[in-house]
Amino acid sequence: MVAVSDRTFLVHLGGKLEVAPKIQVKNREDLSRVYTPHVARVCEAIHEDPSKAFQLTIKRNTVAVVSDGTAVLGLGDIGPYAAMPVMEGKAMLFKQFAGVDAFPICLDTKDPDEIVETVKRIAPAFGGINLEDISSPRCFYIEERLKQELDIPVFHDDQHGTAVVMLAGLMNAAKLIGKKLEDMKVVIVGIGAAGVACTKMLLSAGVKNIIGVTLEGILHRGKQYDNEIWNWYKEHTNPDNITGTLDDAIVDADVFIGVSGPGVLTVDHIKKMAADPIVFAMANPTPEIEPELAAPYVRVLATGRSDYPNQINNLLCFPGIFKGALAARASTINEEMKLAAAQAIASIIRENELREDYIIPSVFNQAVVQRVADAVAEAARRTGVARREVMPKDNY
Amino acid sequence: MVAVSDRTFLVHLGGKLEVAPKIQVKNREDLSRVYTPHVARVCEAIHEDPSKAFQLTIKRNTVAVVSDGTAVLGLGDIGPYAAMPVMEGKAMLFKQFAGVDAFPICLDTKDPDEIVETVKRIAPAFGGINLEDISSPRCFYIEERLKQELDIPVFHDDQHGTAVVMLAGLMNAAKLIGKKLEDMKVVIVGIGAAGVACTKMLLSAGVKNIIGVTLEGILHRGKQYDNEIWNWYKEHTNPDNITGTLDDAIVDADVFIGVSGPGVLTVDHIKKMAADPIVFAMANPTPEIEPELAAPYVRVLATGRSDYPNQINNLLCFPGIFKGALAARASTINEEMKLAAAQAIASIIRENELREDYIIPSVFNQAVVQRVADAVAEAARRTGVARREVMPKDNY
Repeated sequence: MVAVSDRTFLVHLGGKLEVAPKIQVKNREDLSRVYTPHVARVCEAIHEDPSKAFQLTIKRNTVAVVSDGTAVLGLGDIGPYAAMPVMEGKAMLFKQFAGVDAFPICLDTKDPDEIVETVKRIAPAFGGINLEDISSPRCFYIEERLKQELDIPVFHDDQHGTAVVMLAGLMNAAKLIGKKLEDMKVVIVGIGAAGVACTKMLLSAGVKNIIGVTLEGILHRGKQYDNEIWNWYKEHTNPDNITGTLDDAIVDADVFIGVSGPGVLTVDHIKKMAADPIVFAMANPTPEIEPELAAPYVRVLATGRSDYPNQINNLLCFPGIFKGALAARASTINEEMKLAAAQAIASIIRENELREDYIIPSVFNQAVVQRVADAVAEAARRTGVARREVMPKDNY
Repeated sequence: MVAVSDRTFLVHLGGKLEVAPKIQVKNREDLSRVYTPHVARVCEAIHEDPSKAFQLTIKRNTVAVVSDGTAVLGLGDIGPYAAMPVMEGKAMLFKQFAGVDAFPICLDTKDPDEIVETVKRIAPAFGGINLEDISSPRCFYIEERLKQELDIPVFHDDQHGTAVVMLAGLMNAAKLIGKKLEDMKVVIVGIGAAGVACTKMLLSAGVKNIIGVTLEGILHRGKQYDNEIWNWYKEHTNPDNITGTLDDAIVDADVFIGVSGPGVLTVDHIKKMAADPIVFAMANPTPEIEPELAAPYVRVLATGRSDYPNQINNLLCFPGIFKGALAARASTINEEMKLAAAQAIASIIRENELREDYIIPSVFNQAVVQRVADAVAEAARRTGVARREVMPKDNY
């Protein structure tokens, strides 16, 4: 059924994860310690004080990677079985990059309330919930309810992971060209899960002039939208309430952020931007404009692809942000923690190292995860959501 | 908070399991193979043919250890958080003894229908469901519905694991003393989850005269019970429809099976049994009669404890039965597969090795798991529930 010469299929045979004991059971004494009868004393300790689950069970270091398979990569709604290889891959990366144990939970339901209920019911084993590849706008409702109803971090990586890494890149690009975030005009095309999250992240970082553009044009207060999140959006962006299309929005923009699809941005658009244009064309696998086409006209170009410089890759964020949140036993991942993560990623590149084609560290840069984790744990402590004190550089 | 000198607590710090990648991601090429973009081809293959999930995801070899924490060890309803150490221990044993990956799912609900729904929704990642420590009689309904509504094996270990190992022991005890199962009179005390399962297992093995005894006395057809399972029970056992208590049931019994509690069986009871009495006093941690007290009067004595000979321990069954079921990609675990498992366990001890204090192999006997797995896979094939051909001694 599977061509054995195909290396991608070969690495997937039998799945990519295993669940391994941390201790080996060698004799009856070991057995009675990890299992009956002595395990009963550990159970009783947790029964008396459920917070001890964070000490005495895998909850301390384990994340559920949850998907309903409705928006997997560029493939769309392929369902929970076909989503598994992506979730397994994500779980691998959690462990290899951050030492965080992660387990794939692919849900055989698309009903948002059923998804919320199910995740709440399986939550006891987990210290955090990473939502993945859930279609928009359902993902907003699901994440919002889970954040309110669970006391462990819930993080939709397609939204916030993208937003954090985008902001890290933009911070460094701004430093490089000598502009300030608060003075910039930023145009975002594609106001779905990632677009909304990028916008919120930029607002948290102090950007004042953000224009959101959809297929229906610029989002503005003169219009009522069917999509609820767009009605929220128009109230919190577009200070001058401009109207029109990308052709209008792009005039004098300092930054273009694309989380849409191929062919959205043209050279003519870039020519209308302010001096030293910054273009983050993050559509995957085909960016909003071909990098070779854009290159002569932009100052800084970033994409979602690994075969061009400046890759905006969530892998720079999710391992460290969960490592820090789990270490601090945080009850949530708030804006300050995401902001701290973005600053930590940006800080990996020293100011004298910054170049147009080097505003984002490589995903294989081993300094990233611990830097992010430390910053996130400290932000959790500062904002009062940490349930455990973490010392920077602690071996957690 | 935790005494660091306590070795049982020490082995539990941070939990007893980790989720590990089977392959290391060393460079961009590896990354694109296990994750984006190349993983998309694997997703598409499963989308076209969902049965490929058994080849290309962890479903092939992964079991959920599911509990609601309502009947944990002897502790009762201690909830999902406090149940975790037991489920983690079970998952450890699955991996160490059978190479089966198992993950603990402790459910924050006690509603039987919600438990069924939740397990169904998370089933895509799993090749089997091991139900654990769910209180009776709820456990019957939950297991029955899941068996009907899922196409992967569902196995309530407290019921069937106990029953399989009990039968293995009884087969060998019968061989040793020269009686036949079909001629035996068997009295079972404690008609909850394990008692019902033991009874069904004995019926499948050909035992004809089984008397069930509860705190209300012998279950018989002259009475209507509130407990639905007892009404089923009275119709399928007690051929002579006798009434009374254990005092009456035990007269001329060949076998006493206790899955109840301490002090239920007395020396006077044993004296009323037939020649060569067989007593399986399996209540944990305190058997139905003290082994030292019973020893002079019984021919064969078995308990659930590791500090006496003949330990009836589920660990002899669940690793191998799931290993075999997963290898055969079985859609269920049926009576024939359980019977095959019991015969396989019994067969580990050669006839000339059988002794009164050696009717059950040690849980550390390394021949058990593969013997059970082979027999179970073969029974699955024979009964038409296997979706994959397994050769005995295959390295699966």
